[in-house]
Amino acid sequence: MAKASTELGELNAADRDAFVGALGGVFENAPWVAERAWSGRPFATVGDLHHALMAALKGASEAEQMVFIRGHPELGSNMARSGAMTQASRQEQGSLGLDRLSEAEFQRFERLNGDYRERFGMPFIICVGRHTRPSILSEFARRIANGRAAERAAALEEVGHITRLRLNEIVAGPGKPPTDGRLSTHVLDLVSGRPATGVLVVLKELGLGSEGVLKEAVTNADGRTDAPLLAGRALRIGGYEIAFHVGAYFAQRGVATSRPPFLDVVPIRFAIDEPEAHYHVPLLASPWAYSTYRGS
Amino acid sequence: MAKASTELGELNAADRDAFVGALGGVFENAPWVAERAWSGRPFATVGDLHHALMAALKGASEAEQMVFIRGHPELGSNMARSGAMTQASRQEQGSLGLDRLSEAEFQRFERLNGDYRERFGMPFIICVGRHTRPSILSEFARRIANGRAAERAAALEEVGHITRLRLNEIVAGPGKPPTDGRLSTHVLDLVSGRPATGVLVVLKELGLGSEGVLKEAVTNADGRTDAPLLAGRALRIGGYEIAFHVGAYFAQRGVATSRPPFLDVVPIRFAIDEPEAHYHVPLLASPWAYSTYRGS
Amino acid sequence: MAKASTELGELNAADRDAFVGALGGVFENAPWVAERAWSGRPFATVGDLHHALMAALKGASEAEQMVFIRGHPELGSNMARSGAMTQASRQEQGSLGLDRLSEAEFQRFERLNGDYRERFGMPFIICVGRHTRPSILSEFARRIANGRAAERAAALEEVGHITRLRLNEIVAGPGKPPTDGRLSTHVLDLVSGRPATGVLVVLKELGLGSEGVLKEAVTNADGRTDAPLLAGRALRIGGYEIAFHVGAYFAQRGVATSRPPFLDVVPIRFAIDEPEAHYHVPLLASPWAYSTYRGS
Amino acid sequence: MAKASTELGELNAADRDAFVGALGGVFENAPWVAERAWSGRPFATVGDLHHALMAALKGASEAEQMVFIRGHPELGSNMARSGAMTQASRQEQGSLGLDRLSEAEFQRFERLNGDYRERFGMPFIICVGRHTRPSILSEFARRIANGRAAERAAALEEVGHITRLRLNEIVAGPGKPPTDGRLSTHVLDLVSGRPATGVLVVLKELGLGSEGVLKEAVTNADGRTDAPLLAGRALRIGGYEIAFHVGAYFAQRGVATSRPPFLDVVPIRFAIDEPEAHYHVPLLASPWAYSTYRGS
Repeated sequence: MAKASTELGELNAADRDAFVGALGGVFENAPWVAERAWSGRPFATVGDLHHALMAALKGASEAEQMVFIRGHPELGSNMARSGAMTQASRQEQGSLGLDRLSEAEFQRFERLNGDYRERFGMPFIICVGRHTRPSILSEFARRIANGRAAERAAALEEVGHITRLRLNEIVAGPGKPPTDGRLSTHVLDLVSGRPATGVLVVLKELGLGSEGVLKEAVTNADGRTDAPLLAGRALRIGGYEIAFHVGAYFAQRGVATSRPPFLDVVPIRFAIDEPEAHYHVPLLASPWAYSTYRGS
Repeated sequence: MAKASTELGELNAADRDAFVGALGGVFENAPWVAERAWSGRPFATVGDLHHALMAALKGASEAEQMVFIRGHPELGSNMARSGAMTQASRQEQGSLGLDRLSEAEFQRFERLNGDYRERFGMPFIICVGRHTRPSILSEFARRIANGRAAERAAALEEVGHITRLRLNEIVAGPGKPPTDGRLSTHVLDLVSGRPATGVLVVLKELGLGSEGVLKEAVTNADGRTDAPLLAGRALRIGGYEIAFHVGAYFAQRGVATSRPPFLDVVPIRFAIDEPEAHYHVPLLASPWAYSTYRGS
Repeated sequence: MAKASTELGELNAADRDAFVGALGGVFENAPWVAERAWSGRPFATVGDLHHALMAALKGASEAEQMVFIRGHPELGSNMARSGAMTQASRQEQGSLGLDRLSEAEFQRFERLNGDYRERFGMPFIICVGRHTRPSILSEFARRIANGRAAERAAALEEVGHITRLRLNEIVAGPGKPPTDGRLSTHVLDLVSGRPATGVLVVLKELGLGSEGVLKEAVTNADGRTDAPLLAGRALRIGGYEIAFHVGAYFAQRGVATSRPPFLDVVPIRFAIDEPEAHYHVPLLASPWAYSTYRGS
Repeated sequence: MAKASTELGELNAADRDAFVGALGGVFENAPWVAERAWSGRPFATVGDLHHALMAALKGASEAEQMVFIRGHPELGSNMARSGAMTQASRQEQGSLGLDRLSEAEFQRFERLNGDYRERFGMPFIICVGRHTRPSILSEFARRIANGRAAERAAALEEVGHITRLRLNEIVAGPGKPPTDGRLSTHVLDLVSGRPATGVLVVLKELGLGSEGVLKEAVTNADGRTDAPLLAGRALRIGGYEIAFHVGAYFAQRGVATSRPPFLDVVPIRFAIDEPEAHYHVPLLASPWAYSTYRGS
């Protein structure tokens, strides 16, 4: 895959070979997808280009699609560990730690991969950049119950997510399809009616123990963290916890409470299922009560 | 200590020997406390009787008080494990698992006991029935910084808690001093405006891992648990979590949400510091928001 | 209608004349309803008796039902003002002030009565004890759009409500059908984590201006009013407001806020549509935030 | 007062006459204030200029200050109605309707003005642009209880508010002192977990009946109003109500509720006391529950 960025304008002006040369790696081992989309130039936006590429894929014969799908590596497989996959796939799977699975996890993925391959005759495709490990496992469980046609469609939908990310990385231009999500928070002090400043906020991915801490931050004068808790990429579907250290906050301000304080570290647990959305998860708290909600 | 219950009326009518025979064990190895309180008969309530006993103790000389205090066993000590304590003390310490400490915990208690004894020349007295293990450790840390007079007063205050419990067990009559607390909950469904029925609720003591589960219950037609989550004894000072399984509840009712649900198991963490109080910790929830508060 | 209460047991043992003598007035000018129900004795509960009476009415011919329905007075009509209605009807309509309508209101009811009678050939029947004036007007508007059969059924349903109330008043015995609702409140202070004591609470029926004040009360040590805001009868379907004077409460406790206070008199407006239900409408408040919900 | 805007740079470069010519009208009939501040040039910001002008005023003798204060018109006085005041004062008092008082209101202001003048020997000065009529009356009541020195200081503080507004209007440049506040809202649908779109929101000033409606707006796709409810000027200290028409919103979306809906028009009443602050007053609502808070 080209690392350097290509301008959409150049692609619109390119001949077929140059076009395929620039985009051929976006669809795993399948330059023919770019070849067929070439005739649709010019594309007004990067999103239109992606749409045209996906249309070429979806318009291909079932046999072609199966060959394409079968060209993908299995998740967390020996192939992943031994290196026989494209650089793009390697990088995506590595971001989730699928190249560093424990032996037990590795066995589990192997078994699921095997079951899935036996049932559908293809590898399990999923856009790992939009998932946590637990959500990949639950998608495995859910999709393995699909019929063959529904599952082929599900695989192509994931290819859409994967290639949208890849395309955005290598093509510059207007109308990039959205691939980033955002998680933000806010703490309001119900006693003073003001933003709560100086509250320690710890974001964790659930199910990973102490390894799961993704970010620690302290609220600023506006009761927010200086930067979003998560941003700049797709959010991973999965379970999260934000722990708000309100006990220390109220103690420091001298607000009367009990000893130990009725509320100390308040955990808010929630799931993310829209990787490209904005999740706002605020806390409104007194020493004795709190509320939260999904805002946006 | 007498196991059978004695009527307050009998005690009011008793001669000194019978009175001391009935109550002598309430104050650890110190029948003289009951002896001195005897002259104050008759007592209108069990609370008045307890007050008179405590007044006799607090009115004693510092030397007498120190002898009395030194007659108490150390927490989680060899004595506790080998049996050289009164049956009442054994039962109280056993309720917290202080007779089944791990080697590491045992070492920690031994070290604290040693430090404390060295500083104050007496064993650390605390009403274990009103505490969790973490709160005993934090009380150790707090009280070891006291001056000698303040700490002797603190020890007598704990004796007051201990003997109030013991007295209530063996004396029947009006005006028993309060020794029981209560923890209750309630779940309200903000979508239907009705009590949430069939919500799994799991109460844990914090800091104990899976061992810490104290109660599991399912909410009834009134959104409450059939019995309080905790009742019938003093609440233990410490940290708790109630986990409300609202994700399963809304799924079963077919209320639309995301997949996975934004809210699944909602943990509410709080501390109890008033063992004889009523804590009501409700949850008001939709699939996207919730609030809680200390009610009563 | 008999004012003195009759035992259900006596009715079960009564001959037809005595039975009709006791119950004949329950169904407006229609002793035949009681006559037909008589043969169903004995009735285990007062509710069963009411059910049997209603079954006799619903089992009657359409012509008989129409005669029965036409025997009812019109709401707020000249008849009401001049006295040609049964004492029970007079009392029910009087409770809502329908015998003291202003000229404009009287004209409005007359017009609605006229339109309704023209359309259905019968007076508009509604259980006034379960309604406010605005809800009667909105029921007029809703029901006038019904078909004839649906509207006759609607009228008989109202007769069921009316006679259930009347029967409960004159028959003593087990299993009385529920006719009472209840409205209660509770104020929680989010700053102290305690019930808010001494908060003035004013309940109004909406749409009536200063005339609409139904109750003023002050919260007690438990944050509740000593008596329910409404109880002892059916709640009237309609709009209500509870005004909570939290500004004065927090000022008296010396809790810091702005001047004038951000929150002073907090109005909670809600509708009641289940006259026999329990409505609990609490307020959780700090000087800067509050929440409310329909509890039960 | 100059209507055309003057650059701060020009003022810094101006000779005394030009300086006073530009700013002399800012302080009511007191060009000497500008004269004395002139020597402090250059001023880095408009705020610094205002600070220097106020310092000149506060540094003047008590006699000079009294002459200055006595040069102000009385609120809502005959003078206001007959025209003997500066154009700036006329415009400010007109914004509140003080030139269109009813006879009763006029009498009330006359009486307060008389009492105040008798007590302090000067007219009551208040920055009307930061007040509602009720808050002016309550300030009258509060300040009339002041001692003479405290009240002279209070009057000068108001002059500071008045002249800050005037200065900002006529001087262009960096560092203008803040004179604008903002009121915004947001509606969150607790059933869908999304911003509530299409909710009618009506802002009223309290105490004015139907005349008091300041703004009607409908929430957009983000659950906000396209423009803030109030902005572009100081907020007036006083009581407000935002009425949220959530009943119609949920009905339109087909969300189940009662008939009439438990919640229909939700009124949130609150006071503003910081004219230059941002007030955010959101509503989080299901058909059965809601909460609000002062956000920012």
